Amino acid sequence: MYAVILAGGSGTRFWPLSRKRNPKQLMSVFGGKSMLQRTVERVLPLKPKRILVVTNALQAEETTRQLREYQQACRIDVIAEPVGRNTAPAIGLAASIIARYDPAGVMLVLPADHYIVQEEKFRTTVLKAREAALNGYLVTMGIVPARPETGFGYIEAEMEERGAGPYPVRRFVEKPNLAKAVEFLDAGNFYWNSGMFIWRADVILDNLLAHMPELSAVLARLTFSDDVWELGDLQPQIEGIYRDIRGESIDFGVMERADNVVVIPADFGWSDVGSWSALPEVMEPDQAGNVAIGVREELALDAGNCLVYGGGKVAALIGVQDLIVVDTPDALLVCHRDRAQDVKRIVEELEKRGLSEYL
Amino acid sequence: MYAVILAGGSGTRFWPLSRKRNPKQLMSVFGGKSMLQRTVERVLPLKPKRILVVTNALQAEETTRQLREYQQACRIDVIAEPVGRNTAPAIGLAASIIARYDPAGVMLVLPADHYIVQEEKFRTTVLKAREAALNGYLVTMGIVPARPETGFGYIEAEMEERGAGPYPVRRFVEKPNLAKAVEFLDAGNFYWNSGMFIWRADVILDNLLAHMPELSAVLARLTFSDDVWELGDLQPQIEGIYRDIRGESIDFGVMERADNVVVIPADFGWSDVGSWSALPEVMEPDQAGNVAIGVREELALDAGNCLVYGGGKVAALIGVQDLIVVDTPDALLVCHRDRAQDVKRIVEELEKRGLSEYL
Repeated sequence: MYAVILAGGSGTRFWPLSRKRNPKQLMSVFGGKSMLQRTVERVLPLKPKRILVVTNALQAEETTRQLREYQQACRIDVIAEPVGRNTAPAIGLAASIIARYDPAGVMLVLPADHYIVQEEKFRTTVLKAREAALNGYLVTMGIVPARPETGFGYIEAEMEERGAGPYPVRRFVEKPNLAKAVEFLDAGNFYWNSGMFIWRADVILDNLLAHMPELSAVLARLTFSDDVWELGDLQPQIEGIYRDIRGESIDFGVMERADNVVVIPADFGWSDVGSWSALPEVMEPDQAGNVAIGVREELALDAGNCLVYGGGKVAALIGVQDLIVVDTPDALLVCHRDRAQDVKRIVEELEKRGLSEYL
Repeated sequence: MYAVILAGGSGTRFWPLSRKRNPKQLMSVFGGKSMLQRTVERVLPLKPKRILVVTNALQAEETTRQLREYQQACRIDVIAEPVGRNTAPAIGLAASIIARYDPAGVMLVLPADHYIVQEEKFRTTVLKAREAALNGYLVTMGIVPARPETGFGYIEAEMEERGAGPYPVRRFVEKPNLAKAVEFLDAGNFYWNSGMFIWRADVILDNLLAHMPELSAVLARLTFSDDVWELGDLQPQIEGIYRDIRGESIDFGVMERADNVVVIPADFGWSDVGSWSALPEVMEPDQAGNVAIGVREELALDAGNCLVYGGGKVAALIGVQDLIVVDTPDALLVCHRDRAQDVKRIVEELEKRGLSEYL
């Protein structure tokens, strides 16, 4: 099995901690290892033959640096996209590389910035999904929904009763409104679309040829030096072909159109950590619901459901609820928890005001 | 006229900016000069013969340092109390010094940590009060109330209609409840007790003798070297007599008991800046009601009535109301505006946890 880690996100929603050169996946969000490093450590026990990390030019250096310590355990190649083109080109590129050396190789595709609570259960699910992948299916991991979430897309499965799957996918559903989300939760055969996939390299390439022939044609221009996995010549070619590549997600480009898609129910405690408000959900809050990370000492007086992040200071909260407080050396964020999605608007405003050193 | 500035407050309510060694009156709360320095600059145009600043041992050095630049304009003596004993001993001590060299000298008593908007009007009021003081009255400045404030004591005047005064004082009233405060505001003859006084040194000493004989007796033990104002020998004596002095306010010890007390209505824009929540009242907020001091750039997104203080950073507020945010190098405070009085409880808690470096 090969692991392909998609690590090119810009992560403006974790400003001011995340910056253009230090996005969420490279951040030590939970103290200690970065989310990228945690993703690598999560797959290492599966003993992948190789790990491919697809990132962008701006982050390639730091990405490479963070992965150095794992090169002994597993060879990791970092591929830098000159510009982000969504998931389909990144996945197509990785599949082209793997197929060149191991056409029927199974590839596990993982975003670099997801949080998983039960790592062993995650690996068990991956191994189960691998069987279906070996049989020629496009396997997507469907997260068993924990609440009527309106922020994710859903996958509807064809299933009689809940089991381990895999189940054929009836359809992919856009982010629903709350009424729909409640309906999906009650129905029991809907899953969150996690963006984690498993398939054979040749199978996904066949599907790209069928459903995204333009992308497939551009990828076919890549030439590889010899039969030994060595990507030194590839980077300049990538710069070239990306000029001709349109941005598209693998979901829209392939998954929603292919007929051999199955879903594996995944129930290992998952969060895409899409904004600051997700952190208290995946961390262990204290009795008042407060989470303090990177703080010298927290003092809460009638304060609850707050996240205080960074600064290494004494942090005192008095009579406040549902706040996100992020303290970095050059920026301070105080945000209502329900407004965490709007952090990216601050980043836009900073750009507009020409305060680029804070981006 | 002599000015006596009471500068010994501990100012825990402005934590984390104010610390034991750097209390409110020594802080540059509004940027630029400290409140003590502003107090001195406010009285200098009145051409006082001398200025006496009474502070405590811990703050004496910084107090002296801050006053150095004014020594050319007016001789300023700093007197350090070994321990705070409320206002009566500090005022009695200052009166004893002044009376030794100029018995009928008029002394203006001012707290070092009050904010005054219209300084010229303040001085006009002082000069009017001085006339009554010369005639042997104990004059207290009564602030014309701007709202039914429950956080101050009140002074009831004997008056037929509003004028410049002075008016005889009928009684001093403790902090009222809201109903009472509304009543006082409607009545029109109630003033806020500001803690600013004017009287002759001999008059206040006579009143101390009559109403606080114990304190009077202790103060009588002070000996002065000669007829030239020189306080070098005084400091060790002060250390001695303070062991025998009980803490008492001048209000309770003298003003509420004396029969020659008059009130001068004062209407020059006043705040005792008793807590962080007072700052937005005396500063100029922006359209959303936000005040930012010592901040590199403020970005407010649906945020209003907030104070952001210090840090020199980009400060972003999203979807929050009525917050006080104070950022210092080693501590961060996020407090609801209505809870500003509770900042001192954080200081108590820090003390309890042994985090004395943050006090």
